[in-house]
Amino acid sequence: MKKLVAKSAAALAVLSLSALPVFAQDAAETPAVSPEVAYIFNTLLFLIGGFLVMWMAAGFAMLEAGLVRSKNVSMQCLKNISLYSIAGVMFWITGYNLMYTGVDGGFIGSFGPYSFDPVGGDALDTGYSTASDWFFQMVFVAATASIVSGTVAERVKLWPFLIFTAVLTGIIYPISGSWQWGAGWLSEMGFSDFAGSTIVHSVGGWAALAGAIILGARKGKYGADGTVHPLPGSSMPLATLGTFILWLGWFGFNGASQLAMGSIGDVTDISRIFANTNMAAASGVIVAVILTQVLYKKVDVTMALNGALAGLVSITAEPLAPSMWATLFIGGVGGAIVVFAVPLLDKLKIDDVVGAIPVHLLAGIWGTLIVPLSNGDASYGTQIIGIVSYGVFAFVASGIVWFILKSTMGIRVSDEEEALGLDKVEIGVEAYPEFGTGSQRL
Amino acid sequence: MKKLVAKSAAALAVLSLSALPVFAQDAAETPAVSPEVAYIFNTLLFLIGGFLVMWMAAGFAMLEAGLVRSKNVSMQCLKNISLYSIAGVMFWITGYNLMYTGVDGGFIGSFGPYSFDPVGGDALDTGYSTASDWFFQMVFVAATASIVSGTVAERVKLWPFLIFTAVLTGIIYPISGSWQWGAGWLSEMGFSDFAGSTIVHSVGGWAALAGAIILGARKGKYGADGTVHPLPGSSMPLATLGTFILWLGWFGFNGASQLAMGSIGDVTDISRIFANTNMAAASGVIVAVILTQVLYKKVDVTMALNGALAGLVSITAEPLAPSMWATLFIGGVGGAIVVFAVPLLDKLKIDDVVGAIPVHLLAGIWGTLIVPLSNGDASYGTQIIGIVSYGVFAFVASGIVWFILKSTMGIRVSDEEEALGLDKVEIGVEAYPEFGTGSQRL
Amino acid sequence: MKKLVAKSAAALAVLSLSALPVFAQDAAETPAVSPEVAYIFNTLLFLIGGFLVMWMAAGFAMLEAGLVRSKNVSMQCLKNISLYSIAGVMFWITGYNLMYTGVDGGFIGSFGPYSFDPVGGDALDTGYSTASDWFFQMVFVAATASIVSGTVAERVKLWPFLIFTAVLTGIIYPISGSWQWGAGWLSEMGFSDFAGSTIVHSVGGWAALAGAIILGARKGKYGADGTVHPLPGSSMPLATLGTFILWLGWFGFNGASQLAMGSIGDVTDISRIFANTNMAAASGVIVAVILTQVLYKKVDVTMALNGALAGLVSITAEPLAPSMWATLFIGGVGGAIVVFAVPLLDKLKIDDVVGAIPVHLLAGIWGTLIVPLSNGDASYGTQIIGIVSYGVFAFVASGIVWFILKSTMGIRVSDEEEALGLDKVEIGVEAYPEFGTGSQRL
Repeated sequence: MKKLVAKSAAALAVLSLSALPVFAQDAAETPAVSPEVAYIFNTLLFLIGGFLVMWMAAGFAMLEAGLVRSKNVSMQCLKNISLYSIAGVMFWITGYNLMYTGVDGGFIGSFGPYSFDPVGGDALDTGYSTASDWFFQMVFVAATASIVSGTVAERVKLWPFLIFTAVLTGIIYPISGSWQWGAGWLSEMGFSDFAGSTIVHSVGGWAALAGAIILGARKGKYGADGTVHPLPGSSMPLATLGTFILWLGWFGFNGASQLAMGSIGDVTDISRIFANTNMAAASGVIVAVILTQVLYKKVDVTMALNGALAGLVSITAEPLAPSMWATLFIGGVGGAIVVFAVPLLDKLKIDDVVGAIPVHLLAGIWGTLIVPLSNGDASYGTQIIGIVSYGVFAFVASGIVWFILKSTMGIRVSDEEEALGLDKVEIGVEAYPEFGTGSQRL
Repeated sequence: MKKLVAKSAAALAVLSLSALPVFAQDAAETPAVSPEVAYIFNTLLFLIGGFLVMWMAAGFAMLEAGLVRSKNVSMQCLKNISLYSIAGVMFWITGYNLMYTGVDGGFIGSFGPYSFDPVGGDALDTGYSTASDWFFQMVFVAATASIVSGTVAERVKLWPFLIFTAVLTGIIYPISGSWQWGAGWLSEMGFSDFAGSTIVHSVGGWAALAGAIILGARKGKYGADGTVHPLPGSSMPLATLGTFILWLGWFGFNGASQLAMGSIGDVTDISRIFANTNMAAASGVIVAVILTQVLYKKVDVTMALNGALAGLVSITAEPLAPSMWATLFIGGVGGAIVVFAVPLLDKLKIDDVVGAIPVHLLAGIWGTLIVPLSNGDASYGTQIIGIVSYGVFAFVASGIVWFILKSTMGIRVSDEEEALGLDKVEIGVEAYPEFGTGSQRL
Repeated sequence: MKKLVAKSAAALAVLSLSALPVFAQDAAETPAVSPEVAYIFNTLLFLIGGFLVMWMAAGFAMLEAGLVRSKNVSMQCLKNISLYSIAGVMFWITGYNLMYTGVDGGFIGSFGPYSFDPVGGDALDTGYSTASDWFFQMVFVAATASIVSGTVAERVKLWPFLIFTAVLTGIIYPISGSWQWGAGWLSEMGFSDFAGSTIVHSVGGWAALAGAIILGARKGKYGADGTVHPLPGSSMPLATLGTFILWLGWFGFNGASQLAMGSIGDVTDISRIFANTNMAAASGVIVAVILTQVLYKKVDVTMALNGALAGLVSITAEPLAPSMWATLFIGGVGGAIVVFAVPLLDKLKIDDVVGAIPVHLLAGIWGTLIVPLSNGDASYGTQIIGIVSYGVFAFVASGIVWFILKSTMGIRVSDEEEALGLDKVEIGVEAYPEFGTGSQRL
């Protein structure tokens, strides 16, 4: 998070102002929250936020398992648990330092694995445990990779996908992340993205878009005459469960991005963020439900779910400042984006299996763009510069990696393998071996 | 929660007693927990409790998705994510202030949307962040609405259900809640309902009962000769998952209803509440398992699950005071209520799809009634007055709303639509499009 | 946890060193974290850790529901919610005091139910609420019982299993646990098992192994000629969900086993534990994925899931001290153990339905054995003494109980009942009544 540096500096300033005078002044000025207590609260925030965001990995897994066809469900489960694992290792080996160490207003940090506090560490001056910060930042990069896996599902080979994940989480995301949260050039310019509408969600969305274009659509999705054939997901309750998990995890995603809980101002802000995060999602659901009823005379449950997620992505760039009315507006537009963008992508024959591009890329752009509405420190011009910069870099870098993988090992299974399903071809374990072949089995 | 007002007053009293003398007395009497630190702890309690109770929305969704037939599962998922969203918006627009602002011993609060602390708020004298309190109270009203959706499943139309939800969460629940937790007339009379056996669970149960009676039973549930035809739920693991989610969320529901964590007495009480809450559920499971074995020679897993929930509802009115023996008794009776009440409702031809009426209404009454056993401040007479008052109001008000909806837009799908399933008719997205038609498909 | 006694003693030492001088010295030496604030933090750690580990009960339920065949899924759900309930009651009636009260370097504690802090308890000198500690320890014993239920699935009768659970959680686990965490003889000898690779996981694994041997394999699993017939699990997404739940819960399992959060050293250690716990699991996944690809040319998703769990079990004996490289090594070997041990067990015709013996018993031994690599206070000799002692006791004691149950009420359903499935025979509620009979339905 961008505010990490600023926050801890600010915290230290507060600490030095309030803690030191104890020695010089009378006891009545003992700081209300001692630096040690603030350190514990700050670290606890990272730990709670961290486990909530870690839980989002399960949310993506369930959402995607529910939205792919049953013949590809085991593969989707495997990809999700693997990408979460790879993201952690890569973010330790190269990611964290590329993103946070020695960026100094530039474009990239330094190379090398990250080192935590030692056992029993007592480096009070950081204001929090460095391992807790690492953990919290690590789960964010996993979220970026999860976005990709949904879009390219049902036809991408396992190993090229995992290699792409390693590059995305170890290099691409950390470099672009450094521009803002590592106190790089965009941060100096005044770009504002509180918890990552652009930095996490749009970057994942751009990587997914590049993959979807280079991979091509699933067989049977688009007719030669331009007709679109729905390929219904295998389990709506799993998709619903995944959405609820993501919603829950987002309280950690946005709330703990406050990066400090050791003062009443900080914990009050976290509370506002919780309320706003929840209500943006609620607004996204309500708008998506109403719109699909009006447009199609039936309510599409997948639109309601993606409406929630789009509302969440939309508020992520600025979950603190908006009033409740602004929050409902921001989240509601997110829900509308999903309803209109899903068919639009189909017109462009971009096959996004789970709707991740509307949810994460488009709503992420929207959320970042609208920050100045409620946050006076942000400007529309700088927001656009940031959005475009992230877009160009993430799309081009991802495209190059996908292209190299395609040219070397290949990224797509054969047509027969696709028809048979990835579970039989690459995994050897069917997701639901006993459930009969329904009429819609494809 | 009732104790909110009392608690914060008490907390302030403690603060003023312990904090102010610092200036007057010597340093050795510095308060052990400063008002600022207590504020952070109190707010953190609301946030953690809040996200745990929010997670119960997923629990209800999974429980209900597992207990309805597969042709109605997408609808049940949609209803649950929609009702959670609507509850949030309504509780902000009218609910919170109706329930908590200016009740003053009366029957109702004031109208109008709620306003949170500003960004960086530092109103130390409340003792906690108002946004965190709002968030915590909001997730409770969603639980009330979730109770209704299970009972009326498989035949209620989407839109009338959502309108009912809006009225319940924006008007009915807040008004009746104000009587006790808003420091209204029942609170002044000495009614005791710590975390809402009556105020949340029975109110939801009464609303569900009114709906079930006015809607009528599902086609095929009751034969003309009085026979009962079981309509088995589609997925026991999802129902089990939902129960475990609710059990987990209940630690927030009951634990954070302590409303303060800024003293060792409070956090010790929260710990007792965690232990008691867990053991009441465990007792409910064990009693339900033994009883169904004895009565039916087979153990019914749905009874075990509902036994857990009934145990949880039973202890919710007083999760702090009971000894462990009393806790096991209170929760165990809850489990027994489920085993005996489910067939009883069937005799009355009241079709409660998920068993929400025994679990939430009847166990809620039981839990509220038995409070004086362990809490000397409560009296059986006042408990009965509260139970009856809530029952009459919630049942009549809900009945009127259901009746108006029935008379205007209609609340029930046609027989053919019901046979076809709500997913095909109103949603257009089947929950499990690929899973074959088993022998019991109904 | 072993450190409970030591920790609280240490905490008190710190408190007395830092708190008392306030009265004697000048205000500048006011303790940075007052004993009251430390008490709240310590208790909060138990509560958060406790609810995370409680959630692991749902993880085991989903993992096992996904890995058994659909005809036994309701039974598996019932067993899991029942064992969690029984574990709580037994750990209160006899378990806690057998394990923690009056062990004094010996082999067993004292008999009798446990008593918590009273309402509003203010016994500051314990350093935490006793009810929070009880809750945290209780959820650990439930984990032990969950390990058994997976291994013996699909053929064990319900009631003998529940009786075994009661003995395991009320007597066997508490007695052996007392040797180390109750400050018994192994603790005095210097055995080291931070969060229970041996004490929780291997003990559960030994109990499962004894059960698997005495029960015998499922019909059809092993051919007369030694061939192994896979009996595929019914739902990979549920197994995946269960694994993610367990992974999440493990942050509480290992993190809160630090047993204190009231100093910056403690919360920093908890942060290291979070990071190491996560990375050991990640390494287990990656190793299992690579190994199954190399060995079998396909990646087995169940191996990836069990690789995560084996990584988690492996790091549990010492999640704090290892460097990141050591963590990746320890977790990775755990993943390899699963890949090699699953076929090995099949060669021995030990039928472990979910792979719990490799994951919990073997990886538990590995994790305990390797502690001295990173923790200089531990010795290989003492670790081996502890591993063997726990193994002999848990295997023999469990074997005796299983044998008595077999000789009296019988522990295995008949062949016809096994073929029909436990859900129809003992539960009467099918898990998926509507899903058709797939080609692999067995």
